[in-house]
Amino acid sequence: MRVGIIGATGYGGAELLRLLNQHPHVQEVVLYTSSKEGMNIQESYPHVSDIYTQTLKSINVTTIKDEVDMVFLATPPGVSAEWSGQIAEAGCKVIDLSGDLRLQNPDVYEKWYKREAAPLALIKDAVYGLPEWNREAIKKAQIISNPGCYPTATLLGLAPLVKNKLIDVESIIIDAKSGTSGAGRSPSAITHFSEMNENFKIYQINQHKHIPEIEQTLQEWDEKVETITFQPHLVPMVRGIMATIYAKAKQPISEEMLRHLYKEAYKNEPFVRIRPEGAYPATKEVYGSNYCDIGLTYDERTGRITIVSVIDNVVKGASGQAIQNLNLMHGFEESTGLSLVPMYP
Amino acid sequence: MRVGIIGATGYGGAELLRLLNQHPHVQEVVLYTSSKEGMNIQESYPHVSDIYTQTLKSINVTTIKDEVDMVFLATPPGVSAEWSGQIAEAGCKVIDLSGDLRLQNPDVYEKWYKREAAPLALIKDAVYGLPEWNREAIKKAQIISNPGCYPTATLLGLAPLVKNKLIDVESIIIDAKSGTSGAGRSPSAITHFSEMNENFKIYQINQHKHIPEIEQTLQEWDEKVETITFQPHLVPMVRGIMATIYAKAKQPISEEMLRHLYKEAYKNEPFVRIRPEGAYPATKEVYGSNYCDIGLTYDERTGRITIVSVIDNVVKGASGQAIQNLNLMHGFEESTGLSLVPMYP
Amino acid sequence: MRVGIIGATGYGGAELLRLLNQHPHVQEVVLYTSSKEGMNIQESYPHVSDIYTQTLKSINVTTIKDEVDMVFLATPPGVSAEWSGQIAEAGCKVIDLSGDLRLQNPDVYEKWYKREAAPLALIKDAVYGLPEWNREAIKKAQIISNPGCYPTATLLGLAPLVKNKLIDVESIIIDAKSGTSGAGRSPSAITHFSEMNENFKIYQINQHKHIPEIEQTLQEWDEKVETITFQPHLVPMVRGIMATIYAKAKQPISEEMLRHLYKEAYKNEPFVRIRPEGAYPATKEVYGSNYCDIGLTYDERTGRITIVSVIDNVVKGASGQAIQNLNLMHGFEESTGLSLVPMYP
Amino acid sequence: MRVGIIGATGYGGAELLRLLNQHPHVQEVVLYTSSKEGMNIQESYPHVSDIYTQTLKSINVTTIKDEVDMVFLATPPGVSAEWSGQIAEAGCKVIDLSGDLRLQNPDVYEKWYKREAAPLALIKDAVYGLPEWNREAIKKAQIISNPGCYPTATLLGLAPLVKNKLIDVESIIIDAKSGTSGAGRSPSAITHFSEMNENFKIYQINQHKHIPEIEQTLQEWDEKVETITFQPHLVPMVRGIMATIYAKAKQPISEEMLRHLYKEAYKNEPFVRIRPEGAYPATKEVYGSNYCDIGLTYDERTGRITIVSVIDNVVKGASGQAIQNLNLMHGFEESTGLSLVPMYP
Repeated sequence: MRVGIIGATGYGGAELLRLLNQHPHVQEVVLYTSSKEGMNIQESYPHVSDIYTQTLKSINVTTIKDEVDMVFLATPPGVSAEWSGQIAEAGCKVIDLSGDLRLQNPDVYEKWYKREAAPLALIKDAVYGLPEWNREAIKKAQIISNPGCYPTATLLGLAPLVKNKLIDVESIIIDAKSGTSGAGRSPSAITHFSEMNENFKIYQINQHKHIPEIEQTLQEWDEKVETITFQPHLVPMVRGIMATIYAKAKQPISEEMLRHLYKEAYKNEPFVRIRPEGAYPATKEVYGSNYCDIGLTYDERTGRITIVSVIDNVVKGASGQAIQNLNLMHGFEESTGLSLVPMYP
Repeated sequence: MRVGIIGATGYGGAELLRLLNQHPHVQEVVLYTSSKEGMNIQESYPHVSDIYTQTLKSINVTTIKDEVDMVFLATPPGVSAEWSGQIAEAGCKVIDLSGDLRLQNPDVYEKWYKREAAPLALIKDAVYGLPEWNREAIKKAQIISNPGCYPTATLLGLAPLVKNKLIDVESIIIDAKSGTSGAGRSPSAITHFSEMNENFKIYQINQHKHIPEIEQTLQEWDEKVETITFQPHLVPMVRGIMATIYAKAKQPISEEMLRHLYKEAYKNEPFVRIRPEGAYPATKEVYGSNYCDIGLTYDERTGRITIVSVIDNVVKGASGQAIQNLNLMHGFEESTGLSLVPMYP
Repeated sequence: MRVGIIGATGYGGAELLRLLNQHPHVQEVVLYTSSKEGMNIQESYPHVSDIYTQTLKSINVTTIKDEVDMVFLATPPGVSAEWSGQIAEAGCKVIDLSGDLRLQNPDVYEKWYKREAAPLALIKDAVYGLPEWNREAIKKAQIISNPGCYPTATLLGLAPLVKNKLIDVESIIIDAKSGTSGAGRSPSAITHFSEMNENFKIYQINQHKHIPEIEQTLQEWDEKVETITFQPHLVPMVRGIMATIYAKAKQPISEEMLRHLYKEAYKNEPFVRIRPEGAYPATKEVYGSNYCDIGLTYDERTGRITIVSVIDNVVKGASGQAIQNLNLMHGFEESTGLSLVPMYP
Repeated sequence: MRVGIIGATGYGGAELLRLLNQHPHVQEVVLYTSSKEGMNIQESYPHVSDIYTQTLKSINVTTIKDEVDMVFLATPPGVSAEWSGQIAEAGCKVIDLSGDLRLQNPDVYEKWYKREAAPLALIKDAVYGLPEWNREAIKKAQIISNPGCYPTATLLGLAPLVKNKLIDVESIIIDAKSGTSGAGRSPSAITHFSEMNENFKIYQINQHKHIPEIEQTLQEWDEKVETITFQPHLVPMVRGIMATIYAKAKQPISEEMLRHLYKEAYKNEPFVRIRPEGAYPATKEVYGSNYCDIGLTYDERTGRITIVSVIDNVVKGASGQAIQNLNLMHGFEESTGLSLVPMYP
């Protein structure tokens, strides 16, 4: 098949290029741009030299269906609202990696994103692309809104407990840590090397856009969920997210039961791995791969469960999950092109 | 005055050397060892070349009072239990940077440290050296047990709320992040560069020795405190601790009130700085200094207060705080030798 | 085919696991050990959980041919001298990633490695596995000595100039910089995170074992070569080598000519990429891939050529090149299993 | 005394603030700006909170002498050419940390800096502030041009050999490596954390502005010097420079002689430390301090001397050296305010 990428010069786009090169059913990749027409991708990314030699071209909705079968939007906020609907109407499937189509309630979107929401019809058409918990809908979708990086790690970490109503949902706290690639490719004071190395920062306290995204899905799973506490931090590393999740157990629970619950929930999942008792994943153990690794334990002293969920934010938190969705949408085996062993060390 | 250091080849010892060099009342530093007699400190630490040229000598309790006026123990667990009492009896003041004398209940020590506790009399003699909240006792002490790095950041971050009974103490969760220097100088798989760089790890889940230390002091401040949840993480950086602390407010509280509370509590403190509304400290903003910087906010959605407390674990979390204690014990101005501007970038 | 790995718990072994998983002709991987029999690879490397679930087994030369078709030795110095010959005699092809079989002169080996050389017959049987310049011999070899990481970057960087006798060979200086993974997995003071991060070190000045390896091949290319100057440095990163190579041009040479020379020399090479004029590779541009990227320029002021050659030391500098050699030895297309796009960022 | 800083929001300015706080003779620091009038320094640099609370003010040459006794210019290229002369004429001593006044030949400046040179009279008035080799001139100067970071490490490393005519000056090659702080505080693609971490880069090949600065001083020391080869690299760390310097010895020289030469040359220098035979400095061994540490060796095989010279680029390579010059200009003991032990780890 032929796929298009809008936004190939960002990190989500670069990772799509890396992963699509391994995909046996993708014969052609077309790179679209709204502002950098005529630039060769090798100028922007010397690491793809001699592998991708394409020139960026402008988007033309009337001819796009002749060029590609589906389109990834790896674009800044606001772009997808404009293009996703038109491209889908032109007959291409669409996977939107931005956050534009994730929140079902436009008021909530406008409160947290502080910009106008996409048209309601478009939002309603978009299926939330978390395969482990939404697989059947994804298979039939024309438009996918690919989950955010923090929500992916958090939701996979919380699902078995929330769905089985084993925790006090009011008590959920997510302390999340991310590498800098999640902040994108635009230089900024916050991610300037001299200010970020040998440094650890908290940011967007109580204000991160992923808070309502996490709450929305948790509420689908348990209507008692109202709000969660979520604080993101920046780690002096490039890739990787760890979500350390805290919740009160309604009842004491054994380590065996906990692990059984998670092993059962994810037993057929190609990309979720549960650590044995006493072991917890580090972010590097999923580096460059589409895995979400989870460790967890119950503390008898405090009655709290601590869940440790790690992903590579650029893969399972973005482009890898997007390709997982592509596979589902097109009837390919779900892990096609994604069976990469994490890179270690 | 003349000071002795036992354990100068560890990181706590190295930092004492750096800081004591700036101290106007310290004329001589004697380096003691139990295993490396005859080694010149410059062999172990080329960075002190031409500044400290001493050779390590063995400890002799019968003559130590002739050599030094006070002694720092920057030693592994177990050493202080043996030496602190003898050195104090010999007439030297003692500041113990290890955790041996911090826990007042030997049973608790043995549970968490998994080794025999120090003699009870010695434990009772040792004063907990957190100057901001224990200043008068420190001034009169012969033996100081210098607080742990995580407890320092956590207790300074929680004190005004706990002492004023403004939070539900059962709800306290501390998600702590540290640079690797806290793990000491001995090479290990966990802190091997190839396994730690571009990586983020959680460790000692529900088992860190600083948990009972934090609980002990919180219980002194509010007897309703029973247990807290505390999870430490390793950040791919050398220095710095951030404690992100979560607690339910008993009542809604305004940002003005929160900040007023902290500003008042620490208004005369030379080493605690409160950030203005909307600002939160990063670890690098205290790098190499004795400051504890604190930012905090109340979230109306969840009713939770988030407190961000950062220190340099090697300074305020160890050797700097030890010198602050030395100053108090000897009647020097508290910030003597410690008025260092953080190193940035 | 079935392949065996001796030394799978080291970094070279881990990278073989990552890469072999992508190799379409490798059906089975057997892990051998001389000291860790019975250990499951997932205990040593959680990142391969659910992918490689093998247990390490001891080496038995009499049955090894029944188990595997070829064997990688990713072992410390001294092991290969013992095993390579026996395994080859048993009928398996052997690729030795250690330095034991690289130096043709045992006296030179013993001088630089400070240990006994392998049997001369074994050394003579071993073919130096630098495919770009030794392809035909590799195809026919039973035993390959896989080149060192620094020699790979250096020799690929120097070959066109040395072979064409365009530089004064006496003037060659290689200033090389490596990530820490080249130092292996054993924790040490030098690669302890707290001592390596925010630090840059030179090591083994004038004494690195790769010096005679570089000289040996350069001498094959131009008998006028006698000695080179080579100094290695440790960079606070995990993967990547940059060799900055300096040499006097015998005659002034244009940028066009320089680039033409290199483009021609490597025009059919799948893993060597030449940067355009004014561009020089950074190590991250080959991260996780088998590429060697080269940039170079002539300085009219000084008459010197500067060549910048980068590789991922764990891939093209070790396990990737080993698989490239496997492909040649077994008649597979040379880049089979190795067509990975570098991971960026 | 009272000192002024123009450009306090850059890294050179921040480091002046850190160091001046330790200086016993500096009673007041006034912060000047040409563009950020009215900004409080704590907004730009939270790490100086409660220590420096000044507001930036605009420069007024007619009143500046009433406000301060001397002025540091820690400014981008072009600013000093405008202000230095006027401020000096107003009666303040001036230390210029920019490169504007370093090159004595305006044609050379314009070739390498690609901008108009400062007025010739101003250039001629400015004394090159390398105290170890220009002390007497500095003491009498009204205007100091503070050396560049790379030239400081390089010139201190080469001086004893060049001045004693022991090396073939045509053979000098400097392979230099720097942390990112040398690139300043403005965010850029090159120093974006995601592009710089786990990466190692070469830059400004054969074009760095410090090349003519190094050549100029070497030519003063030995008129036979014409050109040198100098290539700078960026290390994924914030602070520190290592210059690895290569040169052919005219005659074989013993390790004893080499070390004797350097020890003699620097025996009275407070900030130059020579490592013993077989030891070479790492950048962290001078972190945060004003030291230049040097190790060196002669290789009998190649006849080359390798010199390893390290500094903290922000201290000895900029602000620390500037204060060393201030001390000399004002008759203070040379190391006043600068006797900081390097921070390690």
